[in-house]
Amino acid sequence: MRYELYYWPTIQGRGEYVRLALEEAGVDYVDVARRNKAGVRAMMQMMAANKGAPPFAPPFLKAGSLVIGQTANILLYLGARHGLAPKTEAGRLWVHQLQLTIADFVQEVHDTHHPIGTSLYYEDQRGPAKLRSAEFRKERAPKYLGYFERLIGGSGGPFVTGRKLTYADLSLFQIVEGMRYAFPKSMAKIERKTPGLIELHDRVAARPNINAYLESPRRIAFNEDGIFRRYKALDK
Amino acid sequence: MRYELYYWPTIQGRGEYVRLALEEAGVDYVDVARRNKAGVRAMMQMMAANKGAPPFAPPFLKAGSLVIGQTANILLYLGARHGLAPKTEAGRLWVHQLQLTIADFVQEVHDTHHPIGTSLYYEDQRGPAKLRSAEFRKERAPKYLGYFERLIGGSGGPFVTGRKLTYADLSLFQIVEGMRYAFPKSMAKIERKTPGLIELHDRVAARPNINAYLESPRRIAFNEDGIFRRYKALDK
Repeated sequence: MRYELYYWPTIQGRGEYVRLALEEAGVDYVDVARRNKAGVRAMMQMMAANKGAPPFAPPFLKAGSLVIGQTANILLYLGARHGLAPKTEAGRLWVHQLQLTIADFVQEVHDTHHPIGTSLYYEDQRGPAKLRSAEFRKERAPKYLGYFERLIGGSGGPFVTGRKLTYADLSLFQIVEGMRYAFPKSMAKIERKTPGLIELHDRVAARPNINAYLESPRRIAFNEDGIFRRYKALDK
Repeated sequence: MRYELYYWPTIQGRGEYVRLALEEAGVDYVDVARRNKAGVRAMMQMMAANKGAPPFAPPFLKAGSLVIGQTANILLYLGARHGLAPKTEAGRLWVHQLQLTIADFVQEVHDTHHPIGTSLYYEDQRGPAKLRSAEFRKERAPKYLGYFERLIGGSGGPFVTGRKLTYADLSLFQIVEGMRYAFPKSMAKIERKTPGLIELHDRVAARPNINAYLESPRRIAFNEDGIFRRYKALDK
């Protein structure tokens, strides 16, 4: 079976957590909306359906007759199938819990440049974005990344849940990448206090499938349409 | 086994989605932090742990030796055990997907009064809160609630996924309650376009266990420390 991933074609965004899992698993997939405009239209049509299980937003994954939406839910599905999550129920719930906490963090990153609303441009909410980013840099980012550092320190292994890599590790790699892009100054300070997280990031980056993906044209570069955006006014 | 729920003792908040599921299931549980101050301390200590699976934030549920965090993750666990989710994998993923979309909506509700940051008071972010609420009332709330209305219309049954009640229906009940409390004026307008959602709300409210819960002192009243807050300046 060839998986079909549906996500915005020009950004990493939330789709990137799914792309990383598909790449690490080495499975056959097509990034539908990146192929052509018909792919984008197909994505919009699936969301507009009145019957079946239309997703509220991308990303979503077509797996045979199943259509699965919500990033963490897609990873729950892929993790169980491709060795990216523990086999026990307790282990699966724990990895999923971490992914949902990462999703909360990603939402807070998004809101640093869009505190007033997603239907407005960043340029129309610069003042509030500065305020929100200051709170994010001072309180939220250190709290979240410090939490993951603590977990890695206590996991008893090189990964966040222990000895084996899971999709949560792939996602932690991605948020380190994103923070370095969007908030280089504040992330440099945070990194001094999160050496375990940085080691984990490096370990994920060095995995053959991930390394090959990052070097390929399939990896979209960070840009100012995505979730992690580099605006000088928001970093210090 | 008696479940232990850990959540802030004076608000509905995100804990309420778990409380509704426990009540509908009719299972034995204790709302630990509501018993006494020692309960709140126990909750804080569990989050501060260096080993095991410390949650990032409440709510979390202790089920025997398991500690499960993240609202949607707790519901994933409870749904499978207490007949509040389908038995098929496809059905379970779909209900979970809806719950995650509800969680996104709840986060947007929270941000109407806290657009700049959770560590600041509402009173310190009134201006941005007005702007964010305007966007929420005009764009976001109608989009989310219209999406659920469409799903209910196409489900082929009285509930959002069809003929059987799931935890997603309980959560939809709660967001209708919350919207009526926090945004009475704009919700009155939205309700004219979402009759199926309102019927579903009424159907859930009439269930014996839910009805008994709502009449009991276990149901905390909405207030301005929770997620759904009534601030006149934010509704129109």
